Amino acid sequence: MASQKIQGIFTPHLVPLDKSGEINEPELRRYIDWLIAQGAHGLYPNGSTGEFTRFTPQERRRIVRIVCEQAAGRVQVLAGAAEANVRETLDACAAYAEFGARAVAIVSPYYYQLSPESVYAYFREIAIHSPIDVTLYNIPMFASPIDVPTIRRLVEFPRIVGIKDSSGDLAFMMRMIAAVRPVRPDFCFLTGWEAVLVPALMVGADGGTHATAGVVPEITRKMFDLTRAGQLDEAMRLQFRLLELFDAMLYSADFPDGFRAAVELRGFDLGVSRQPLSESQQTDRAALKKVLQRILTGLGC
Amino acid sequence: MASQKIQGIFTPHLVPLDKSGEINEPELRRYIDWLIAQGAHGLYPNGSTGEFTRFTPQERRRIVRIVCEQAAGRVQVLAGAAEANVRETLDACAAYAEFGARAVAIVSPYYYQLSPESVYAYFREIAIHSPIDVTLYNIPMFASPIDVPTIRRLVEFPRIVGIKDSSGDLAFMMRMIAAVRPVRPDFCFLTGWEAVLVPALMVGADGGTHATAGVVPEITRKMFDLTRAGQLDEAMRLQFRLLELFDAMLYSADFPDGFRAAVELRGFDLGVSRQPLSESQQTDRAALKKVLQRILTGLGC
Amino acid sequence: MASQKIQGIFTPHLVPLDKSGEINEPELRRYIDWLIAQGAHGLYPNGSTGEFTRFTPQERRRIVRIVCEQAAGRVQVLAGAAEANVRETLDACAAYAEFGARAVAIVSPYYYQLSPESVYAYFREIAIHSPIDVTLYNIPMFASPIDVPTIRRLVEFPRIVGIKDSSGDLAFMMRMIAAVRPVRPDFCFLTGWEAVLVPALMVGADGGTHATAGVVPEITRKMFDLTRAGQLDEAMRLQFRLLELFDAMLYSADFPDGFRAAVELRGFDLGVSRQPLSESQQTDRAALKKVLQRILTGLGC
Amino acid sequence: MASQKIQGIFTPHLVPLDKSGEINEPELRRYIDWLIAQGAHGLYPNGSTGEFTRFTPQERRRIVRIVCEQAAGRVQVLAGAAEANVRETLDACAAYAEFGARAVAIVSPYYYQLSPESVYAYFREIAIHSPIDVTLYNIPMFASPIDVPTIRRLVEFPRIVGIKDSSGDLAFMMRMIAAVRPVRPDFCFLTGWEAVLVPALMVGADGGTHATAGVVPEITRKMFDLTRAGQLDEAMRLQFRLLELFDAMLYSADFPDGFRAAVELRGFDLGVSRQPLSESQQTDRAALKKVLQRILTGLGC
Repeated sequence: MASQKIQGIFTPHLVPLDKSGEINEPELRRYIDWLIAQGAHGLYPNGSTGEFTRFTPQERRRIVRIVCEQAAGRVQVLAGAAEANVRETLDACAAYAEFGARAVAIVSPYYYQLSPESVYAYFREIAIHSPIDVTLYNIPMFASPIDVPTIRRLVEFPRIVGIKDSSGDLAFMMRMIAAVRPVRPDFCFLTGWEAVLVPALMVGADGGTHATAGVVPEITRKMFDLTRAGQLDEAMRLQFRLLELFDAMLYSADFPDGFRAAVELRGFDLGVSRQPLSESQQTDRAALKKVLQRILTGLGC
Repeated sequence: MASQKIQGIFTPHLVPLDKSGEINEPELRRYIDWLIAQGAHGLYPNGSTGEFTRFTPQERRRIVRIVCEQAAGRVQVLAGAAEANVRETLDACAAYAEFGARAVAIVSPYYYQLSPESVYAYFREIAIHSPIDVTLYNIPMFASPIDVPTIRRLVEFPRIVGIKDSSGDLAFMMRMIAAVRPVRPDFCFLTGWEAVLVPALMVGADGGTHATAGVVPEITRKMFDLTRAGQLDEAMRLQFRLLELFDAMLYSADFPDGFRAAVELRGFDLGVSRQPLSESQQTDRAALKKVLQRILTGLGC
Repeated sequence: MASQKIQGIFTPHLVPLDKSGEINEPELRRYIDWLIAQGAHGLYPNGSTGEFTRFTPQERRRIVRIVCEQAAGRVQVLAGAAEANVRETLDACAAYAEFGARAVAIVSPYYYQLSPESVYAYFREIAIHSPIDVTLYNIPMFASPIDVPTIRRLVEFPRIVGIKDSSGDLAFMMRMIAAVRPVRPDFCFLTGWEAVLVPALMVGADGGTHATAGVVPEITRKMFDLTRAGQLDEAMRLQFRLLELFDAMLYSADFPDGFRAAVELRGFDLGVSRQPLSESQQTDRAALKKVLQRILTGLGC
Repeated sequence: MASQKIQGIFTPHLVPLDKSGEINEPELRRYIDWLIAQGAHGLYPNGSTGEFTRFTPQERRRIVRIVCEQAAGRVQVLAGAAEANVRETLDACAAYAEFGARAVAIVSPYYYQLSPESVYAYFREIAIHSPIDVTLYNIPMFASPIDVPTIRRLVEFPRIVGIKDSSGDLAFMMRMIAAVRPVRPDFCFLTGWEAVLVPALMVGADGGTHATAGVVPEITRKMFDLTRAGQLDEAMRLQFRLLELFDAMLYSADFPDGFRAAVELRGFDLGVSRQPLSESQQTDRAALKKVLQRILTGLGC
């Protein structure tokens, strides 16, 4: 399976917590089973939706272990492996390879805003030493941007097999594809911006990793299947409805709390966020859940 | 014709200048004829490509008059009518109505970065008094942004019949369409970002206004026709080639000088820009023309 | 007077309009007299505060003519001369020289975001041909930024005698001074950000051009005099009070309408803005005037 | 000492690494001794300069322990305590209290861009439970901004005793002081932007935490002392020279590598950064060191 091109919809799912704020392992396993049953092509622990920065290094490993175990080969796992530095990241890569992940996803360095040259040097070091395939993760709103010339340089390393782009910029997706596909036809392009999932597939993306796929996995799967089958009108009809849901989740609360509220409406107990909510935020959240319930009902979910 | 929905590819063309820096009327007329012959659905004088800010109010009127005369009803004219203030803008609207323009396009107030409430108040005043249909022009990189709630409020004025959006954000295009089409099915959405022309048409846009349409009008027209005919693969093949041309013109020189260089390669004498070029810029421009010639040749132009 | 270094507080004043929206010349003259009487070192027609973009070219000339006439040599006039292009700007320069202005101020090209090379080429052309001294005007929130290397190149033209910087970045002010003063000790640095007027003078600026100087000219003059006299504690005490006024005017309405409201409280009839206000904005404005009146009373104005 | 107001220049120093990339404890202790001998008022381990994000949680604790031990009460320690979430951060606070730190500094949540309400909720939780005084750390270029209204709300918690602001915006410093000092005269304001250290002290800041203080501690100390003594001319003369050094270190390499290069020139072996450098970056670094040596020599260092 390792040499197969990565494609389809991967779910960067939230992690349920119990009353004491610890990882709620049974609920996480139940959630994983449900995501697979609803049609997720793959799972993506330790993504931005999964609040990877709010867990400790030990917890991040435990999450990937649980997810790989529970997936049990039914779907592929793309494991977020960004740690404090290259050495720690490579240790995580080794662990995730052993757990059975298909590949790791590594976000560009964040906090410091690095130049393209530093972004290149960072991923180069990882590409040379990683024991597992690596996908780049470009999310310029949160981390140092990975630009097209840097991507072009990095695809010379066979270990780098794909990129997830959460910029939402469709022209950027096309620029990457134009620069890379001629030299690396196996390279995988995933959009991380579900607001444009169908258009992104239409211009050549291989799939997506979407927070929304953790809420309505049956819908994102259907959008993928319809687009691949050439039924663009129906795919776009769903795209417009998904956009309404996405906007409500994204712009009504600090990310990813709107998505947490929606997953709760699908029947999962996610517990209380590790990022505290103020009283007014808790009130807003109750109102948001009513809006989300209406949209989910409209989607037949 | 006035009540027909605006659609297709409009060309926000450059204005040829003569040796003394004055409008070169014969060359402008020759250029207009060529654009129409090559398949432009419409013309768009006084757009950003047309460097409207670098002409005097009198010159802007003369340009629209020449374009309307030369079009002579063969294609529609969408005339940029933004002037120093509401009163001056309304005077231009009256003049352009008389010249026979189909509608005016009015960019959101620029220089000052205005709030949505001020943007609303500005267009409301124009909408009430304009003797000609108005299209809004959203170009957030240059002018105060027009957000979706403001657009939703403005479409209650029948005089406002469309919007040109140059943000390049496809999700924004979908949000506008979702908010407006149910209440104003006649409202026209034009993308001003040719990098995503085919995807924009695919998600529901009615056409585009593209600087690139002044360079390769036959290609942008073909992209429109192919998309409308459902031949998306071929449309996307052209979209990728257009993107290469667009990027070369946009990112190799200050806008719109890369486009000026390309139009010259199509056989028009545009004269020297009113924005002076430094010596190093003149050298860069010569190198750029070689790149552009190669791309144009590849496109069969 | 022409060869004297420009220094002190210049007032980029608003222009009173009459009931029909025309320039209210008697009220403008009365306002100018009051500004001079209150201690303004100079006047600055056609600045951002003066809404230069909302007047026609003819009106801009008339404003400078009135101001020069009324100043009648009592204070210096720094006249905003930015027009649609280099040629029009040079024509304005010639006119303002004849009216008796001390120098012109020319904002960096706006609408298009130009590269440093283009900014250089633009001012170079003006510097070579202008019949009157030129001050650069850097206001990166509204216009193409003028960076330190570009300033360093431009000060080689003797016609360029100063810069007004409205970035509010004190380190930038120091960088300019460090780069320019050794080669052009006569070059004048004016801050356009009154929130840091006293600190700017303290690090070496020669004065300021402040919208707030059109509201409380006696206070900005006093801040200048106290700082020059080394009475920094008292100067800073006023600086803090001015900051409260400035923030209230700047952040409670779209610029410059908060300043217009405050000037009205000082007893001038400015008429209705050429930028329309919505109903909710008119309500907000009434509330703002109460806040401003309280602050002005506290300042003893 | 705990109830004394924090003031003076704190050094957010780099951490020397040995050949295998581990913390070089002897060199760190030698560096601390030198910083104290050169006049640092305090030390600031785990700051942005200290690359706190590139160490593991265990390493961050070890660094604070070493620094507290080595300082041995000679100077105060302000320990960076931001961890993955509130609970982990509070654990670090407890540890640093035990090590003898004067207070902790906690950066606003990063990666996710949080709203003011979330920033408030986060610090509120910490303020209620921390066993040690807390200083807020505002660095909007890297982390969620802490705005003035949020600061005003947070100063109601006695555990919050100060703020370090690295925005470089002097007006923001004044706004904070105006909002907080009347209600919390003991509250401490530190600027993190040495480009404006003297002006910041002049407008009321109590000190600074400066990467540059790890390079030329004798100079930043002298600037502080001169300003406090009212010798502003001499303080500003040094400020201009420091600015040249600061700009060279900050803008010639990705932060904090320019500072690392300069500390090496002062005689410390910092080892190889955990953020890999490309070949071209290594070449650039060698050139930068020559520039820095010239500036340091000019400063008499």
